[in-house]
Amino acid sequence: MKLLEDKISNEGIVIGTDILKVDMFLNHQIDVNLLDEMGKEFYRLFSGKSINKILTVESSGIAIAVMAAKYFNVPVVFAKKANHKNVGNDLYTVKSFSFTHGKDYNMAVSKKYLSENDNVLIIDDFLAGGNASFAMLDILKQANANLVGIGIAIEKGFQDGGKKLREMGINLKSLAIVESMNENGITFRSQD
Amino acid sequence: MKLLEDKISNEGIVIGTDILKVDMFLNHQIDVNLLDEMGKEFYRLFSGKSINKILTVESSGIAIAVMAAKYFNVPVVFAKKANHKNVGNDLYTVKSFSFTHGKDYNMAVSKKYLSENDNVLIIDDFLAGGNASFAMLDILKQANANLVGIGIAIEKGFQDGGKKLREMGINLKSLAIVESMNENGITFRSQD
Repeated sequence: MKLLEDKISNEGIVIGTDILKVDMFLNHQIDVNLLDEMGKEFYRLFSGKSINKILTVESSGIAIAVMAAKYFNVPVVFAKKANHKNVGNDLYTVKSFSFTHGKDYNMAVSKKYLSENDNVLIIDDFLAGGNASFAMLDILKQANANLVGIGIAIEKGFQDGGKKLREMGINLKSLAIVESMNENGITFRSQD
Repeated sequence: MKLLEDKISNEGIVIGTDILKVDMFLNHQIDVNLLDEMGKEFYRLFSGKSINKILTVESSGIAIAVMAAKYFNVPVVFAKKANHKNVGNDLYTVKSFSFTHGKDYNMAVSKKYLSENDNVLIIDDFLAGGNASFAMLDILKQANANLVGIGIAIEKGFQDGGKKLREMGINLKSLAIVESMNENGITFRSQD
């Protein structure tokens, strides 16, 4: 998605060869018009698929998932991290590791909101090693829900999460795939 | 907002006299069409005000803030809880207490995204004692930013956060104000 690639190139900040900061338009401050275009693009990429629910994980996946859900006209379920009193006890849970926070956390979804009747699109902001995606897949498996695909805003193509997911036959679409980056610039993988 | 009040009455679950669970359409699973109507209503309530930024706090404020921001055509900044590596070091921070999590947490906003040039609408999902709102007000004060108003989805009118904020002269609008509730039903404060 050229609009997103241009935004990343123009405003994103690369630190070293691994950290890409997009907090100026996606992860802390949110450019809502860009977000709307991203939601529209996810709808185009997964059009014709039978999707009745979008799954994401708090916090930074929520904004993108909600904007996409408006186009799909389906509810969003966001997996909770840590222990929320308000989630209830009847949960699908999985342990995952967050590089952003540098620690393990529990991801949980109430059994009320995912079941074998659901055809689910997973949406998230970043894909790198794939920990969050694999945790969400685990939750879908616990729920016997059907995975339709995974939509990612920014994939770090030089890490192996995307490769693993594609090799599993999953319909993974990333709006921008960073092939390599350093302080001189960012190269994106060309996509149809 | 009758649509939201009806949704709360029909689907919300009251536990005791203090806990109102709306995780079936707002805090865990999100009804995106309702959310869109809520965003539109915030725009109506604060129309004519000069607003160039919406401030909320992760996680459950993000969805509502983003939908409202689409109508205002302004960016959202969401305050981060805890310590995110990706936020950076140049921060406005404030300590707050979360009843949902039963503990103190740090709320932080990067200095890059709030300044004296900003006219800010605060949006959040719940208002009870007002801790999150007061923490966001503290951050605005640190930034010398101008507060235009506060928009809340569901206010617990039987707790004192709303009263305190209104007594400070703040333009506080809540889409639904729960006057009282128990397992037999919910009474809403009538609003113009």
